[in-house]
Amino acid sequence: MLFSYFHEIYEGIKRDKPLIHHITNYVTVNDCANIVLALGGSPVMADDHKEVEEMVSIASALVLNVGTLNQRTIESFILAGKKANALGVPVVLDPVGVGATNLRTQTLQRILKEVKLSVLRGNMSEIKNIYGQDGKTRGVDSVDDSLAGGKEIALELAKRLDCVVAITGATDIISDGEQVFYIENGHKMLSRVTGTGCMTTSLIGTCVGTKKNPFHGAIMGTAIMGIAGEMAYEALEQKEAVGTFRMKLMDAIGSFSMECFQERGKIHEA
Amino acid sequence: MLFSYFHEIYEGIKRDKPLIHHITNYVTVNDCANIVLALGGSPVMADDHKEVEEMVSIASALVLNVGTLNQRTIESFILAGKKANALGVPVVLDPVGVGATNLRTQTLQRILKEVKLSVLRGNMSEIKNIYGQDGKTRGVDSVDDSLAGGKEIALELAKRLDCVVAITGATDIISDGEQVFYIENGHKMLSRVTGTGCMTTSLIGTCVGTKKNPFHGAIMGTAIMGIAGEMAYEALEQKEAVGTFRMKLMDAIGSFSMECFQERGKIHEA
Amino acid sequence: MLFSYFHEIYEGIKRDKPLIHHITNYVTVNDCANIVLALGGSPVMADDHKEVEEMVSIASALVLNVGTLNQRTIESFILAGKKANALGVPVVLDPVGVGATNLRTQTLQRILKEVKLSVLRGNMSEIKNIYGQDGKTRGVDSVDDSLAGGKEIALELAKRLDCVVAITGATDIISDGEQVFYIENGHKMLSRVTGTGCMTTSLIGTCVGTKKNPFHGAIMGTAIMGIAGEMAYEALEQKEAVGTFRMKLMDAIGSFSMECFQERGKIHEA
Repeated sequence: MLFSYFHEIYEGIKRDKPLIHHITNYVTVNDCANIVLALGGSPVMADDHKEVEEMVSIASALVLNVGTLNQRTIESFILAGKKANALGVPVVLDPVGVGATNLRTQTLQRILKEVKLSVLRGNMSEIKNIYGQDGKTRGVDSVDDSLAGGKEIALELAKRLDCVVAITGATDIISDGEQVFYIENGHKMLSRVTGTGCMTTSLIGTCVGTKKNPFHGAIMGTAIMGIAGEMAYEALEQKEAVGTFRMKLMDAIGSFSMECFQERGKIHEA
Repeated sequence: MLFSYFHEIYEGIKRDKPLIHHITNYVTVNDCANIVLALGGSPVMADDHKEVEEMVSIASALVLNVGTLNQRTIESFILAGKKANALGVPVVLDPVGVGATNLRTQTLQRILKEVKLSVLRGNMSEIKNIYGQDGKTRGVDSVDDSLAGGKEIALELAKRLDCVVAITGATDIISDGEQVFYIENGHKMLSRVTGTGCMTTSLIGTCVGTKKNPFHGAIMGTAIMGIAGEMAYEALEQKEAVGTFRMKLMDAIGSFSMECFQERGKIHEA
Repeated sequence: MLFSYFHEIYEGIKRDKPLIHHITNYVTVNDCANIVLALGGSPVMADDHKEVEEMVSIASALVLNVGTLNQRTIESFILAGKKANALGVPVVLDPVGVGATNLRTQTLQRILKEVKLSVLRGNMSEIKNIYGQDGKTRGVDSVDDSLAGGKEIALELAKRLDCVVAITGATDIISDGEQVFYIENGHKMLSRVTGTGCMTTSLIGTCVGTKKNPFHGAIMGTAIMGIAGEMAYEALEQKEAVGTFRMKLMDAIGSFSMECFQERGKIHEA
């Protein structure tokens, strides 16, 4: 059933080449642009407050990523987010490192208050912080990979925020407030490359940019990253080759097809 | 004939290692730095208004790329551009996404008014927008790859701006306002990697940094990218491997020699 | 003897995954993040003045890199540096391009005046400039690779600044003001990839993040880069393949072990 939705999204991406407007961090921005392009979307990065509203007006989705937020871009997050809401452009938020500093926590609260999200994607630390539990954030990497409570948190937070919540980790947990899906794809090498979380958010942005159900888009984008991680790892000749792994990850996305889902997808209701 | 000019430029790069000052976007900046270095130049990225004039004073060329422009860097474009003009340092401009927002369009107009360019390089959408036709820009990727009218636009715009105009696409069109050259090199995989346009602009900057004729420099820089794209594609074992392609592109530039022109160059007058 | 210190640092990184807070440039930031992660640390990049003090408070080391400094980040360098000093968090400084502009030189002087460093790492041009000699800086690449006087400069500057000084080049020279070590590892291909200096600084940051002797950390971080450069070069099938070299460099760090030191380390007292 899910696969037929994925198929529609996949066709939509290939047909429409959705423009995905990012206001994102300068650490992983190149990888985010390349991964959107590899899947078939068209990335555009623009963050000045004088152009973000206009840019989001021609976009199919807006990705907000607070990885290297600053006073200037915080205003742009809000302006672009509100404009996206007014126009029905789906908004995907990556709360990088929320909880690590007050600035991040306050900015997240402000975005959540002023902008209606379609999808919120973070690691367990980040999502727990937003949920209101101590997320044990330390920098931008999750230090909490337990699955315990994840299902309830995803479900409750999705209800509260009225959006899809995707918690990515060894097992990904995705909920729209009614259903919860687990994705068992992926490989631990993904945590040895910076920005695989950001890239997953950009893939989700590309999928929801087709304007199909954002729940399906979030599951699909997350699953693509997990499956690509498996494909990249299998293509390695040397196990700890993190540089080669990163390149092969992009290769896997560039050659991704619906068959990859059928052969490898480990997606099931919780 | 052209090859003897290319040879002079090539020797100049290897001998002088020209310093190429970039004020550029944070999406593709690393690729731009690496490609300048791969060809034999020395890249420097500096954008604060308190240092750009001093930096451009020691540079052999200035590359302005508006991909992620903001209020702060717009001032730096102007300051650096004017200083470059005063000192006779060639200026190469990449009008990324002009037409997508008013901020981009106005900034481009301002740069063109206040700074004298040596080379303007863009895709057909961007160049048509500057020329005054509806360029159908959508984000930063060209949605207009028709060759129709390209020759006239390049020629007329080059005359009007008194600079070299390079329109890159499936066929590249380059004019100095008197002659027009077509370059038939390249591969469609180049459009599946972000920043190949920006990188072409940086290669042009490196070539014009030798202070030879900017028309020859623009043709040479553009042709190198096209030829490198062919070499990178041929080196692939798996066709859709966009990550590997991107790496092989850098390998091709790093091992580029004059023989590559002789064996592969498809450059002719229009 | 040195190896037993390296062993302690190595174990510390693997055990504690030190959080390395960077305020760095947008050119090589992704490579810096990936290299820290490849060695076993946890990178975080954050530069807003409202969060840098809080971020450095949870960090194991602070890396300041002035590559693309601006008015906003200069304040953040100072705020974060002072906080790091107050908390005993080691500070590693990369004076990219000091001497190329007054802004860089003044900023460096200000940082050196207001922040106590653990390690200063630069190329010969940059270190000579700080030492007070004409460093012949031209952009961000060293144009001075002579070893002459290096030992004395490293020793004297380390005494004067009361920190470890690492001069990287064909031969790396590292001093704590009492001893001087030379490292003969490395490969000239390292100078054909942008950011290998920045990456070395980040590796040093990761090593000193274990809170062991910063002299040992600086020697170790520098030697890892040199050895990884040799490993990457040997893994190349095509000699001028700068793109592949860059990827293999990351592979080498990702698979680095203490055996690499024993087999390849060329470290000796001057």
